[in-house]
Amino acid sequence: MGNYQIVGKGIPRHDSFEKAMGLTSYAADYFLPGMLYGKVLRSRYPSARIVSIDTSKAERLNGVKAVLTARDVPKNLTVTRFGQTHTIGGGFEGIYRVLAEDKVHYMGEAVALVAAETKEAAEKALELIKVVYEPLPGVFDPKEAIKPGAPRVEEGRDNLISHFSIRKGDVEKGFQDASVVIERTYRVPFVDHAYIEPEAGVAWIDENGTVTIRVSTQVIEHFRDVAEILGLPHNKVRVIGTMVGGGFGGKEDITVEAFIGLLAWKTKRPVKMVYTREESILAHSKRHAFIMEYKTGANRDGVLTALKATIYGDAGAYVYLSPFVCLYSTVDAAGPYRIPNVEVDTYAVLTNNNIASANRGFGATQPCFAYESQMDELAKALKIDPFEIRKRNYLKKGESLAVGQILDRHVALEETAEKVRHALGEETPPSGPWKVGKGIASGMTSYGRMMFLHDTSRAYVGVEMDGSITIRAGVQDVGGGQASSLCQIVAEVLGVSMEDIKIYIADTALTPLAGTTTATRQLYMSGNATLMAAREVRKTILGKAGEILGVDPERLDLIDREIVNTDGSGASLSFSDAVRACASAGLPLYHVSQFCAPFNDLRRFDLLEGKVFPDFTFGTHGAEVAVNEETGELKVLRLIACYDVGKAINPLSVEGQIEGGGIYGLGYALHEKVILEEGKTRTLSFSEYLIPTSLDSPDIEVHLIESEDGVGPFGAKGIGEPSVTSVAPAVVNAIADAVGARVFDLPATPEKIFSAMKAKR
Amino acid sequence: MGNYQIVGKGIPRHDSFEKAMGLTSYAADYFLPGMLYGKVLRSRYPSARIVSIDTSKAERLNGVKAVLTARDVPKNLTVTRFGQTHTIGGGFEGIYRVLAEDKVHYMGEAVALVAAETKEAAEKALELIKVVYEPLPGVFDPKEAIKPGAPRVEEGRDNLISHFSIRKGDVEKGFQDASVVIERTYRVPFVDHAYIEPEAGVAWIDENGTVTIRVSTQVIEHFRDVAEILGLPHNKVRVIGTMVGGGFGGKEDITVEAFIGLLAWKTKRPVKMVYTREESILAHSKRHAFIMEYKTGANRDGVLTALKATIYGDAGAYVYLSPFVCLYSTVDAAGPYRIPNVEVDTYAVLTNNNIASANRGFGATQPCFAYESQMDELAKALKIDPFEIRKRNYLKKGESLAVGQILDRHVALEETAEKVRHALGEETPPSGPWKVGKGIASGMTSYGRMMFLHDTSRAYVGVEMDGSITIRAGVQDVGGGQASSLCQIVAEVLGVSMEDIKIYIADTALTPLAGTTTATRQLYMSGNATLMAAREVRKTILGKAGEILGVDPERLDLIDREIVNTDGSGASLSFSDAVRACASAGLPLYHVSQFCAPFNDLRRFDLLEGKVFPDFTFGTHGAEVAVNEETGELKVLRLIACYDVGKAINPLSVEGQIEGGGIYGLGYALHEKVILEEGKTRTLSFSEYLIPTSLDSPDIEVHLIESEDGVGPFGAKGIGEPSVTSVAPAVVNAIADAVGARVFDLPATPEKIFSAMKAKR
Repeated sequence: MGNYQIVGKGIPRHDSFEKAMGLTSYAADYFLPGMLYGKVLRSRYPSARIVSIDTSKAERLNGVKAVLTARDVPKNLTVTRFGQTHTIGGGFEGIYRVLAEDKVHYMGEAVALVAAETKEAAEKALELIKVVYEPLPGVFDPKEAIKPGAPRVEEGRDNLISHFSIRKGDVEKGFQDASVVIERTYRVPFVDHAYIEPEAGVAWIDENGTVTIRVSTQVIEHFRDVAEILGLPHNKVRVIGTMVGGGFGGKEDITVEAFIGLLAWKTKRPVKMVYTREESILAHSKRHAFIMEYKTGANRDGVLTALKATIYGDAGAYVYLSPFVCLYSTVDAAGPYRIPNVEVDTYAVLTNNNIASANRGFGATQPCFAYESQMDELAKALKIDPFEIRKRNYLKKGESLAVGQILDRHVALEETAEKVRHALGEETPPSGPWKVGKGIASGMTSYGRMMFLHDTSRAYVGVEMDGSITIRAGVQDVGGGQASSLCQIVAEVLGVSMEDIKIYIADTALTPLAGTTTATRQLYMSGNATLMAAREVRKTILGKAGEILGVDPERLDLIDREIVNTDGSGASLSFSDAVRACASAGLPLYHVSQFCAPFNDLRRFDLLEGKVFPDFTFGTHGAEVAVNEETGELKVLRLIACYDVGKAINPLSVEGQIEGGGIYGLGYALHEKVILEEGKTRTLSFSEYLIPTSLDSPDIEVHLIESEDGVGPFGAKGIGEPSVTSVAPAVVNAIADAVGARVFDLPATPEKIFSAMKAKR
Repeated sequence: MGNYQIVGKGIPRHDSFEKAMGLTSYAADYFLPGMLYGKVLRSRYPSARIVSIDTSKAERLNGVKAVLTARDVPKNLTVTRFGQTHTIGGGFEGIYRVLAEDKVHYMGEAVALVAAETKEAAEKALELIKVVYEPLPGVFDPKEAIKPGAPRVEEGRDNLISHFSIRKGDVEKGFQDASVVIERTYRVPFVDHAYIEPEAGVAWIDENGTVTIRVSTQVIEHFRDVAEILGLPHNKVRVIGTMVGGGFGGKEDITVEAFIGLLAWKTKRPVKMVYTREESILAHSKRHAFIMEYKTGANRDGVLTALKATIYGDAGAYVYLSPFVCLYSTVDAAGPYRIPNVEVDTYAVLTNNNIASANRGFGATQPCFAYESQMDELAKALKIDPFEIRKRNYLKKGESLAVGQILDRHVALEETAEKVRHALGEETPPSGPWKVGKGIASGMTSYGRMMFLHDTSRAYVGVEMDGSITIRAGVQDVGGGQASSLCQIVAEVLGVSMEDIKIYIADTALTPLAGTTTATRQLYMSGNATLMAAREVRKTILGKAGEILGVDPERLDLIDREIVNTDGSGASLSFSDAVRACASAGLPLYHVSQFCAPFNDLRRFDLLEGKVFPDFTFGTHGAEVAVNEETGELKVLRLIACYDVGKAINPLSVEGQIEGGGIYGLGYALHEKVILEEGKTRTLSFSEYLIPTSLDSPDIEVHLIESEDGVGPFGAKGIGEPSVTSVAPAVVNAIADAVGARVFDLPATPEKIFSAMKAKR
């Protein structure tokens, strides 16, 4: 285990004071002289032909400066880029329209844009735009949508976007070898990211003619998409990311950027846009609804013999990140288990539902609900303890996933499950109608992007002449402490305190590009880039110090702004003096480093095989619930999480992430669902779309394992998304343990629990 | 000679349209919500004790938000840093006060600061600050100031700041060997930079708590000085340089930065400050007034035998860059001539005059007036043609300067003089009282900083995924086309057009630091850094293209956005396709390069010896003047300049620089002088301080020699400052040629010419 000064310490983040005091400036907290307000006119139909759009009345309204429709957009039908990726091919093109042309494909699709002197004028102008629609038949179920003759969401293209498969061994034979086979269909709904901060931004043309967009985003590198939409070269668009008031994948795709960019470009004035809550729920992407048909077999000892999974992902009306999500689901479909015979098919399908794209857990969360439900049912059928059956099947280091990827780093499944089981303790006796149950679920979640994407991240670390330190990183901080972790890494390497460091983040003009803050990749990628840069600077300083002290630099260390001899002997030198000496000698004390993730080609996307991800985070959730046998009412008494995080750079942040992931997972397990009726969203406020409140949230017990064997800095692994994955199945397994009845579609509401109990009786 | 596509072409600068249309945003053209106006209270005495300062009335004035005096400044007595230099030592510390404490040392010294809601309130507040002064005796002549018992400008320190010497050979013997010895005293006055744009800036605290200063400056790296003055770490101050409406060295030292930084830090509001013209003339540094006692000997063939020069530089009341200026003068004192015996002594001396610091030509301009006047007088005495005597003494490549520096690159003195002489043509007959005369003068001027300073510059060149290009360089553009030249270099290397390139400059947070835009160093330093970075990117692109085309990358070239085989064979590939291929392969298409100037230690500053500068620019001016024999009135009929510029990256820019330098030099020769009466500046407007108008300016004939042997990119040399050096002596020599009378102190006004003629008669 490494011996660290600052890494591993649960210190407050560099920006927590400002946040706690309400001083942090979010995207909507920004004003420029002469700023206009932008608004979007959205379709109320999930599927309709646009017969005509008349903007003339709106244009004549006092204070209105621009009304734009599709024909005003230089490149309206566009392909989203995914961070630093130029082209991917293989069916991964996330095609979408900026503004609807002759058809609307989902309720909430943007049809026209307005910019006006006041928000009120902009809203009024929306009402004055006259759009004549002719409703068209739609398709709202992915299994229906791939049937021959189903209405096509996008004319001229198949509703089936992508199909990924795994074929390993012989599943038929595997099921023959099984003593028990469980076959079930699991359903999970569209869910919203439900961030506090709705989509917002301000765009303006700077004095060099650059379109500058200050926006709440997880991906500043959408400057490229915006440039193409506006018909400009990439170097004429700048995106500045603000502190994000919740992202969770919902701010991974473009939100307001192109809209305000277009309006600013047209009016040559600054334009602000802030979505209302209704608009946010209506318009931004959701977590994919999945139908998952699972069949798993095990022999009498509980050893798995075969798994067959057919998964239908409802992509909604545009492609966006659906192929990626479904690729992730395919890789994760068989879970972290040793299964000799596996057959997986995942279909991403267009429908006229709300668009679906990234959501925390990106394709890993849905199948975990299925495979971990199956494990508990197998255990029950075989009368084996749920922990025991998992233990017999957990993958170990050196073994490979169904997709063929060998797990070449520490795999802490058994350790995490053991810890959770121990924490859950012995059986709790029932109390009246309240039956208490316990459940566990383990999960695997990748961190870092797929290896065929050639992912890179860059960071700048510089020591000023007075010894103060500057970091520049393109990282967006989505509230996970991304920026603060980088400060901690640099403080460790250079032996300084957090206060000595100033960090600039998330500006395509100001900071070296660091890729997206998605895929649980920033600590891994930018952490490594920052570590590399800091080490280069350290090398220069220690080299000079060695020269001054007459000591081999290898024997020197940097601790508390002092350069000391590691064996305790000899004179020391202050950090400041060493920095001054370097500066006087003309030695550069700044470095830009690029970290390149390992690359592995994966050119066959139809039949997946090989190493897909750099590494995975493994963990287990445990839940203790009380279910009212008479009403189906449920209380989560305890939620326990144990993860191998590799190395907790800041344990406070890691625990915060795991607690947040726990609540997020509880919402998924018990409350959250976007209700769509024939494509029409019915849950347009937080009084209809239910998320866990503080009263719904149990204390979450967090246990960390630090194998120091991750691929991130100091052996860290990612934790942002993994912390969600196994919450829902742990809760559903606990419900089944309490009342002997099982829910197969999320969320597990009291009504469903009640029905399940009733069906069982 | 290199074969170039874009380098060497006189194309319009990337920003000329905006400038011509008045769209460029200068420092004063900037407004922030809630912005206050800052004003400075200045001393009207050149030397006085401050008995008391009462700010209470000013503070109570409606709209006044801050009144600051010296005790409000965390580090009031400060040392200017010179760009990237940390510490120099050797008497080079440019100590000055932000605000006067118990004494004022020159007329115009800042005493107090005010920030108020309006400019009017700020001005009113200045009147309400009551300062009681007790006038003290001052010293106003550098030769007086170093006499024992002279009043001390700064208590506790000698008025003599620095003394540099050269001792070469035996001057006494040299003078014995001479047939003719000319001994004269030359005087040059304080002159103003007289830029169109007075000093201006806006400071504010950004959302991260960083003090951000948007200012017209030649040195964004003063962020360090500002940080120290404010008592902040360096990483908490950011300086953004605006397009500069004239710098010429006058914006090399701090101007408004510390004042607005202090006021913004105190009030937590944005603060703007714009100097009035009077304030600008009064408060900013001037070119040093020099007294130069020269004695030069030559044998009967006109071959120089000895030179002895004693130079007194009037530094005014604070040190600033005076030691550097006087070091330059020492190195340049003997001119570009082969002289076996040389003795030079240069003294920089504090007085209670206006502060003196950098001015275009930085220490090279003053001695050129002296040594080139001497050359003409020697020629006349020996009856040798002025061109001929110079030709016999010009240094050649491989020979060394008096200081011992060997000239290891092409020395084009004779070529430039020959060209000018030819252009001047034969003798012109007099016309009535108007006598026509011709004169030449050659000069040497260093470009790039002194080698012991370890100078560095960095630049970023990146190719976006669509093939558009971004440059980031810390360069300040002072109107010389600094930014545009970098674009041209990159366009050349990457075979693209200027329109494909976007450049960000001059922002300590946004751009890699490039050092100062002074010392005629940016084309040399940042040009080289940019060239290096562009070549790295080119290498990556050609490497990938070679792979695709199956051709050795060495055989590929980039021309007009195409990758072509240099032998004309084989398939070509578009630049965009190659860039896309690199992006898809994860190859980084951006590079930060650092160019380090060659280093040479020069630890003995008292007795200079060795290589001081990386290189010099050599050139010759010729002037044809008509002097009215009856009145002394003078017309400059022609000004001819010939310089070896190494390589003219943009001939339009180079010619513009030489034309500008010519006018600048004519002002020095004929009009400009800050009139100081016992330390009191009497020339506080352009009706008293005279600069050449368009009617005073002849057409300037520019001849370029391109040896391609400079140390800049493509063999370029610097031209910004060198273009001024030899103007004044060429004009004065022409006057002497016309009327046989010589002026020994600048400016050569009609009165002085008249007196000289009278004295001669």
